[in-house]
Amino acid sequence: MAGDSTANDRPDAEDRFVFFGGKGGVGKTTVSSAYATRCAAAGLDTLLVSTDPAHSTADVFDQPLGDDPRPVDGRENLWAMEIDPDAEVEAHMNRIRRSLSDQVSPAIVNEIDRQIELAHRTPGAHEAALFDRFVDVMRSREEYDRVVFDTSPTGGTLRLLSLPELLESWIDRLVRKRTESIDLYEKAAIGERQATSVDEDPIVARLRERKENFEFAGRVLREDAAFFFVLNPDELSIRETERAIADLAEHDLGVRGLVVNRLTPAPDDHEDGRGARYLRARRETERERLATIRSTFDAPVVATIESRVEEIRGEHLDAVADALDVDAAAAAASDARSG
Amino acid sequence: MAGDSTANDRPDAEDRFVFFGGKGGVGKTTVSSAYATRCAAAGLDTLLVSTDPAHSTADVFDQPLGDDPRPVDGRENLWAMEIDPDAEVEAHMNRIRRSLSDQVSPAIVNEIDRQIELAHRTPGAHEAALFDRFVDVMRSREEYDRVVFDTSPTGGTLRLLSLPELLESWIDRLVRKRTESIDLYEKAAIGERQATSVDEDPIVARLRERKENFEFAGRVLREDAAFFFVLNPDELSIRETERAIADLAEHDLGVRGLVVNRLTPAPDDHEDGRGARYLRARRETERERLATIRSTFDAPVVATIESRVEEIRGEHLDAVADALDVDAAAAAASDARSG
Repeated sequence: MAGDSTANDRPDAEDRFVFFGGKGGVGKTTVSSAYATRCAAAGLDTLLVSTDPAHSTADVFDQPLGDDPRPVDGRENLWAMEIDPDAEVEAHMNRIRRSLSDQVSPAIVNEIDRQIELAHRTPGAHEAALFDRFVDVMRSREEYDRVVFDTSPTGGTLRLLSLPELLESWIDRLVRKRTESIDLYEKAAIGERQATSVDEDPIVARLRERKENFEFAGRVLREDAAFFFVLNPDELSIRETERAIADLAEHDLGVRGLVVNRLTPAPDDHEDGRGARYLRARRETERERLATIRSTFDAPVVATIESRVEEIRGEHLDAVADALDVDAAAAAASDARSG
Repeated sequence: MAGDSTANDRPDAEDRFVFFGGKGGVGKTTVSSAYATRCAAAGLDTLLVSTDPAHSTADVFDQPLGDDPRPVDGRENLWAMEIDPDAEVEAHMNRIRRSLSDQVSPAIVNEIDRQIELAHRTPGAHEAALFDRFVDVMRSREEYDRVVFDTSPTGGTLRLLSLPELLESWIDRLVRKRTESIDLYEKAAIGERQATSVDEDPIVARLRERKENFEFAGRVLREDAAFFFVLNPDELSIRETERAIADLAEHDLGVRGLVVNRLTPAPDDHEDGRGARYLRARRETERERLATIRSTFDAPVVATIESRVEEIRGEHLDAVADALDVDAAAAAASDARSG
């Protein structure tokens, strides 16, 4: 699956995983598609992972995408896949159902089904299922130099990162209890049957697997990932970005850079009239907001992108990719590390 | 508190409660402020209830607002209040804590505190606490002809409306159990102490209160309320509005009308250049989206509002209020009822 470019012509690939966060509608799909395009053009084998239910990444590249990576037509070194969040929730439910039904009596399977369905209608379920899938992708995509996600884990999902410690204490307690009961069983045994080893206990095994998944995710996100936020030049977007960055900080995750999207384009100098006045006044307001953004956030603004009328595909995508100041972002990152 | 206008000069006040739903950033505050202004100008005693944590309603009217209704300066018949969602969650937590600590042993109060705090960090808690407050406002504001909310109950909150039936069966079961145990107690009693009546049981009383609250809310929302949605002319906003309307429909709540906000203004006819071309192309795209909106939704578009550079206050607010086709909305409502 890896492309045929040599290792020599590649930029620093130290961050394997790159996430573009931000609220719906700010333009994450465009920006992450452009960034992935840029990485691929620089010679990195790049996988773009989209979670947009509206298949807008397929629209950007004008080709159908699926649940597994496909090469992007006309773009060397670039692969893309689309994860369907609803299908993920469904699959997640089925996995839990299956793994539980092996472990409990058939009599209570129906009741468990009801509980699982209820749990999956809660707001966090969606995020949790997606995160599980992210971990899968992160584990299995070692063949890529860079994996770009068009979304970022948020509040509820990030809380999963603190689960390993909690799970550890559950597992310890469970193993202790099981060992005690197996000891009792062996003392009582007449030697006909072998007692089940604690290591083979299916519940302990499942907890261990979950714990390792979250540990792996936490390690990768802290050591091998970079987070960018896409925002628009309005007050709501600025406030929401502050909140999202604070959520990351609570879990020791920093932000590499900000992309300010949907800036109003300038009219020509000679233009005059209601339209030109409107655009100039808007640009003035946005200039102030940009100043606010630069002074509010520690992370640098790595790109400012103007609104266009045309859909961003083909050469327009390359123009956006050119606007991304990725080198500055990398420099900021090594500053942050050495600082 | 009621104004001095007579009943004669008032339009039909059959919908006491009016909700403006829509995602953050679409302009709900502006539109609901304009609508409330219009109702007040038409002679209805109107209360505007804002839930925006950024106090943007206070900005619109250029005066501080608080948790209780205050008259709006320079606007006859208009009162406004701001509910702080975070403070509501806090207060909600404290109410539950207090009511529980009366009923359980002090030994487990700490554990319960921890559980309550955890529960209130879940995504739905915010909505549930706000909804409780809405019910308070709906119960106590009989003195107003119209109460305008700058938000609308969404998925998680609407599910609370189906709670009464569930609570009813809990209460029945609990009352039965309690009656049995009180019977036993009375049979065993020596006559010195009176057994607590089931009606005075604090847990039963609390469940009854909750049930009545949700029943009241469901009745009022179905019989005495109108829902409007504010949306922007972009695909994401259209999709989200479809989802929100489907959520309402699941609970037998209909939508009275749509307000399309943030349309691009037209340049003057003589204007030519990059800016004018940009604005005209955008307007063309938005015209298509408006056609999509009109064909997708059953509810009528009751206003289309263009973006302005100036903040919407003072006379600008009146201009927006004039753009709201409230009469058409009322007609649509009576159609829906007779149809």
